[in-house]
Amino acid sequence: MENGAVNGYEMETPKNITIKGILSLLMESIDDDKNHSRSVISLGMGDPTAHSCFHTTHVAQEAVIDALQSDKFNGYAPTVGLPQTRRNELHVVHWAIAEYLSCDLPYKLSSDDVFITSGCTQAIDVALTMLARPRANILLPRPGFPIYELCAAFRSLEVRHFDLLPEKGFEADLDAISALADQNTVALVIINPGNPCGNVYSYQHLKKIAETAEKLKILVIADEVYGHLAFGRNPFVPMGSFGSIVPVLTLGSLSKRWMVPGWRLGWFVTSDPSGMFRNPKVVERIKKYFDILGGPATFIQAAVPGILEQTDEVFFKRTINILKQTSDICCDRIKEIPCISCPHKPEGSMAVMMKLNLLLLEDISDDIDFCFKLAREESVIILPGTAVGLKNWLRVTFAVDPVSLEEALGRVKSFCQRHSKQRERC
Amino acid sequence: MENGAVNGYEMETPKNITIKGILSLLMESIDDDKNHSRSVISLGMGDPTAHSCFHTTHVAQEAVIDALQSDKFNGYAPTVGLPQTRRNELHVVHWAIAEYLSCDLPYKLSSDDVFITSGCTQAIDVALTMLARPRANILLPRPGFPIYELCAAFRSLEVRHFDLLPEKGFEADLDAISALADQNTVALVIINPGNPCGNVYSYQHLKKIAETAEKLKILVIADEVYGHLAFGRNPFVPMGSFGSIVPVLTLGSLSKRWMVPGWRLGWFVTSDPSGMFRNPKVVERIKKYFDILGGPATFIQAAVPGILEQTDEVFFKRTINILKQTSDICCDRIKEIPCISCPHKPEGSMAVMMKLNLLLLEDISDDIDFCFKLAREESVIILPGTAVGLKNWLRVTFAVDPVSLEEALGRVKSFCQRHSKQRERC
Repeated sequence: MENGAVNGYEMETPKNITIKGILSLLMESIDDDKNHSRSVISLGMGDPTAHSCFHTTHVAQEAVIDALQSDKFNGYAPTVGLPQTRRNELHVVHWAIAEYLSCDLPYKLSSDDVFITSGCTQAIDVALTMLARPRANILLPRPGFPIYELCAAFRSLEVRHFDLLPEKGFEADLDAISALADQNTVALVIINPGNPCGNVYSYQHLKKIAETAEKLKILVIADEVYGHLAFGRNPFVPMGSFGSIVPVLTLGSLSKRWMVPGWRLGWFVTSDPSGMFRNPKVVERIKKYFDILGGPATFIQAAVPGILEQTDEVFFKRTINILKQTSDICCDRIKEIPCISCPHKPEGSMAVMMKLNLLLLEDISDDIDFCFKLAREESVIILPGTAVGLKNWLRVTFAVDPVSLEEALGRVKSFCQRHSKQRERC
Repeated sequence: MENGAVNGYEMETPKNITIKGILSLLMESIDDDKNHSRSVISLGMGDPTAHSCFHTTHVAQEAVIDALQSDKFNGYAPTVGLPQTRRNELHVVHWAIAEYLSCDLPYKLSSDDVFITSGCTQAIDVALTMLARPRANILLPRPGFPIYELCAAFRSLEVRHFDLLPEKGFEADLDAISALADQNTVALVIINPGNPCGNVYSYQHLKKIAETAEKLKILVIADEVYGHLAFGRNPFVPMGSFGSIVPVLTLGSLSKRWMVPGWRLGWFVTSDPSGMFRNPKVVERIKKYFDILGGPATFIQAAVPGILEQTDEVFFKRTINILKQTSDICCDRIKEIPCISCPHKPEGSMAVMMKLNLLLLEDISDDIDFCFKLAREESVIILPGTAVGLKNWLRVTFAVDPVSLEEALGRVKSFCQRHSKQRERC
């Protein structure tokens, strides 16, 4: 080893900011004497489970307990071809996810299209690793979800950013996509419903994205981890609907719709009715990659068919109603704060991008400074937009119980008043 | 994309054989009419949970159910620094594993040394990915565990093999290690207790490995997924015992000792009392890599402290006794088969390497031919040694219930008799 064990080990740390990293620093900055009496409220993380109003359904919990107690799922989850009885039982998981996703598609997925991952995070890694090769680049949205950039850095994929346009409901800048792509571009990524923007793309816009990708001969990676969490004008349309125009890799999970991000049950799905991904060499490569991944627990996998079949529509509607309510609270309270504006009311997912007007603030240098001072003074955590690619914006998560959300935004208002140039009461 | 989406996607599939892959093919080859009346018995996979005598303890199952039902662990598992209450609860997991492993070490691990992974498989990927850099190579044992080779192929690490010496109880060939290493060698891997050889290394041999690695300025990756499963002359000694001689990366999991491979709860631990791995840049790189991994379910993580504290010694002793018994059955029955020999009686883990003498068989060309014909004719699955790097050997898993094991080895005996050159009854 050239420079001894640890010097070698130091090499090539990606410089990327991570959401977890910056939220940790914000949280640590709170530890002040003056705030010990006030509870910390986080509008920073896309994890609703800290709030009792975002509780998973008993159906899901019971399905997992039943699978565990059956004593049939303590062993390794098989890939294709292990003993007959087990294969049949676990084959059902892939089939169940294929059926679930096919409901909204103009064609049927097969169980062979479905690969089960340890949450959507691992599905992102699978997609990017499978596409990485020398000189390859990938087109990512800005603002976006920084795990893509971090993953691309670890897998040696060059990243090129296209903008999401706030004035057009955060639609993808299709001209920018065409201008950025070259013969080494392998895919473009869309996140719909949108994180961090809270947008939900129309059928027409998704179709244009598919046509653009087809023209450029690149794949579409469709991150649908917030799938079905739509409460505005546009219904959720899966990108796979356009799989006959362009091959789509659909990434998703139980995490958000079932409020169980900690269960780590996601999927990587080839939404590709033309069957380009059924090339045996491609399938073999994907399967081999899965052999080196840990994957989710077998008994959680085994619970999936029950969860998908038995969850009541009432549970989903309740979630949508709360998210609608909390996103409304968010927008209404922000209207009372002159230095923060919301160019596009959220229509889905659990987060929204808000724009900071620093000209109205007297001692705040940028979004990061804003968020650190806010944390220190008000014990409220908000993610600075820089962490998702937009300087001097804020990403606000509204999957928070209404009372805490009102309280947090009240504190943001006080903070902005204290720091406003005119020291006026807004 | 140069050649269209899918052509690009076809590139660079590692050529490695996988255990799962070859076992699948063997299983498929059974589907013959003539065998439908006989049950398939697999001595192929290191997953004991198919057999009721290898059942996990109720303590482990209840700890997981309690964690799930507490409703506190449906959210993301935090890295450092999330809300105070949660941090404290989950920080305990790292601490519990550190304490568990420290019991057998001459120093104390800290919770910062412990990273939780989705089974030992993901821990292997973490270790190899963290060490990969241009031109780097890694020294792997032969025979070994093919996930290392597959992982190295995906992470662009060159592999060099050193032999395990059957005549010396499968000790590592230290001279070969010294001869193979150069300035681009980053680590050597040992698997102890041994898979696939069933060996358990002595304190002295482990110390020599540490000294060899220190001399070569390379790390030791110690795969201890079978940790504590030792029933022969040598007790299990963790490689971390020599962490003050050379930095050790210890990989392990609940899978084998607790009979829950499907729970996917493993660890990547820096057993490194000199603190070389506490270099902030190294820690940052490891933590960032964990941000793109899925990781195990939060509620399973939360169950770990209870599982480690409350599992009764009786449970462990019972497992050891059964493995001792089944390994004895294995060796005794093999003695009755002239064309198969066992150069080293297993002292640990769940597998043993047996040598084929093809000169005594008349229509068997090699180990792969042997295993496919055996599967077809006798519905018994054994892994050909080629899959773990030793042509014309067999890897036999003895973590099988005694009755099935006797039955399977009886069928192997009939098979060998039928195919023996003299057609003698052995």
